[in-house]
Amino acid sequence: MKKHNFSAGPCVLPQEVFQKASEALINFNNMGLSIIEISHRDKNFIAVMDKAQALALELLGLNDKGYKALFLQGGASMQFLMAAYNLLENKAVYADTGSWSSKAIKEAKLFGEIEVIASSKDKNYNYIPKGYAVPSDADYFHCTSNNTIFGTQYKEFPETNIPLVCDMSSDIFSRQLDFSKFDLIYAGAQKNIGPAGTSLVVVKEDVLEKVSRTIPSMLDYKVHLDKDSMFNTPPVFAVYVSMLNLDWLQNLGGIQEIEKLNNQKADLLYTEIDRNPLFTGFATKEDRSVMNATFNLVDESHKEVFDKMWKEANINGLNGHRSVGGYRASMYNGLTLESVEVLVETMKKFENTI
Amino acid sequence: MKKHNFSAGPCVLPQEVFQKASEALINFNNMGLSIIEISHRDKNFIAVMDKAQALALELLGLNDKGYKALFLQGGASMQFLMAAYNLLENKAVYADTGSWSSKAIKEAKLFGEIEVIASSKDKNYNYIPKGYAVPSDADYFHCTSNNTIFGTQYKEFPETNIPLVCDMSSDIFSRQLDFSKFDLIYAGAQKNIGPAGTSLVVVKEDVLEKVSRTIPSMLDYKVHLDKDSMFNTPPVFAVYVSMLNLDWLQNLGGIQEIEKLNNQKADLLYTEIDRNPLFTGFATKEDRSVMNATFNLVDESHKEVFDKMWKEANINGLNGHRSVGGYRASMYNGLTLESVEVLVETMKKFENTI
Ligand SMILES: Cc1ncc(COP(=O)(O)O)c(C=O)c1O
Ligand SMILES: Cc1ncc(COP(=O)(O)O)c(C=O)c1O
Ligand SMILES: [Mg+2]
Ligand SMILES: [Mg+2]
Ligand SMILES: [Mg+2]
Ligand SMILES: [Mg+2]
Repeated sequence: MKKHNFSAGPCVLPQEVFQKASEALINFNNMGLSIIEISHRDKNFIAVMDKAQALALELLGLNDKGYKALFLQGGASMQFLMAAYNLLENKAVYADTGSWSSKAIKEAKLFGEIEVIASSKDKNYNYIPKGYAVPSDADYFHCTSNNTIFGTQYKEFPETNIPLVCDMSSDIFSRQLDFSKFDLIYAGAQKNIGPAGTSLVVVKEDVLEKVSRTIPSMLDYKVHLDKDSMFNTPPVFAVYVSMLNLDWLQNLGGIQEIEKLNNQKADLLYTEIDRNPLFTGFATKEDRSVMNATFNLVDESHKEVFDKMWKEANINGLNGHRSVGGYRASMYNGLTLESVEVLVETMKKFENTI
Repeated sequence: MKKHNFSAGPCVLPQEVFQKASEALINFNNMGLSIIEISHRDKNFIAVMDKAQALALELLGLNDKGYKALFLQGGASMQFLMAAYNLLENKAVYADTGSWSSKAIKEAKLFGEIEVIASSKDKNYNYIPKGYAVPSDADYFHCTSNNTIFGTQYKEFPETNIPLVCDMSSDIFSRQLDFSKFDLIYAGAQKNIGPAGTSLVVVKEDVLEKVSRTIPSMLDYKVHLDKDSMFNTPPVFAVYVSMLNLDWLQNLGGIQEIEKLNNQKADLLYTEIDRNPLFTGFATKEDRSVMNATFNLVDESHKEVFDKMWKEANINGLNGHRSVGGYRASMYNGLTLESVEVLVETMKKFENTI
């Protein structure tokens, strides 16, 4: 029986995406070949890559605005490094809103001076810092739009006149934003894009080629741009499934439509977290993530009972990250409202049991 | 109808591997979840990663010899860079036996002095240079065991007392070698390992941590070793299919058995290339690759006729790389003898037609 999958990533994708991917593993495009045995130079795969890139730009509203979309390997963690390798000449400024921001900062330090201009570390990252100024003498400002582990999310981004770089790994394609404010957006695929094994990089071409260092080919955005993500063998299957998933989103009506559903799911769960006396939310209310809801038991001694109940309700992946404890319900694009309803019912049932 | 797939990579894998992968896309390990929606920290996936790593070492005969196996992202091209980043302090020596060696050399030059001590560039890489000495004052010697594009393969490797690094992307797991002679072996998965999107790195631990530079986490073998290839989200699906494929190989009897089959396939095809007056082999006979047979038409004007014939025979991926022209039949582990028989019959039929 199909689980209600609240995993933080890799995570659930629409069932029809799994189905199509499964079929293409045996016979792709009626070629008599598996999707994973065809050459990446085959026109059937080039069409997949082109479509995935085009869908990404279209969905973000970045067509014809000087942006290119790339599907690369290495995960978002490779982008911590590549962003700095490609853009950092002297100094960059970062906001530290969680473990992923901290890791991005650590890697960037190898390439120049890093100034942390805002941090919520003082309260175990349960809020988004606000009201700080972004200096104009830095090469770029880096932030993390959604903090997967702590369940916080930027509702507004600081104004700045320097290039804006954003790790959107856990909320890209989930809500409407003016994406043209960003110069470099990156995201590991394994939440709202596709399977683990590729990352989407959306880059405004005019921020590139400004650093003086020589960049190794595989780490150079320009090299990948010039080869349309085909400088070397791309992760064919991960790109294919990403294309299927972005296509699913477009057919649904794009970000505008999924945003409504995402808000519905998050409202339902947060309402219950607040109402139910046995639970308490972790993140500051105004900064709550629509993607990852973090919450704890008011009384930890009930843990065993609740854990048993949600497992019996066919729920998967609800354990919180060790930095927060408690629970984390990740409600990415692929999660249905029904799954959230099942979770909320289980929380109510738990209340009645205790 | 299933094709006879001679693609150079991504390439054919055993049909049962495609089948199992297709099923796991819907329901993996009877978990009620797709293989691509489970957390990489789930014990079901950790078991997959552990098994893939263990199988790799076992098949290579490198158990308990100080080696570790890693499944990383980025393809073999990322290893051109990582090998140098991790091992090159002052000077390294390289053999240049084809386009892939040349690219490895180009990337390594960013990190130290590179001396090319042997090259077959003078004859468009149609042979493997021999009889040269490897200096003992370099940090390592790098070679490419099988030259995918040109169809040449080392039958013996130079003796050396410095660390031996080898790009085995296109012939790993295809033939018996004393793998313990090598200190670092890497291979993009998309030939004899699995789908594109992961690379196998087999490293002797004692060659690491000898360079003075600081290595970014994602490029540092030691970081990945310490985290068992789970420093960040691994390419779950590519690792899973690699595990299935290595398991298939072990059940078959390992490298010892597949080597016999590979020799049979290569003998059959090369015998026909030599016998058939319409074809001529590209690579020097003694250096011919068992994996990639490169051959040309004696009379190019027959191209249209032959191309039509092999396509009608349900053959895929026979076009040669533009650097060599003509044809390339890649006969990796997953290709059946039957497919080679079909190709050879087609070559004979072509001879009778002309
Ligand atoms: C916001 C964010 N950034 C970066 C990462 C790291 O991604 P990867 O494992 O693909 O390197 C994650 C992983 O969950 C994440 O949530
Ligand atoms: C011998 C060899 N090395 C390196 C590569 C590059 O591999 P990747 O495309 O995975 O970077 C290839 C690709 O075919 C190859 O055959
Ligand atoms: Mg975080
Ligand atoms: Mg409450
Ligand atoms: Mg080559
Ligand atoms: Mg001949």
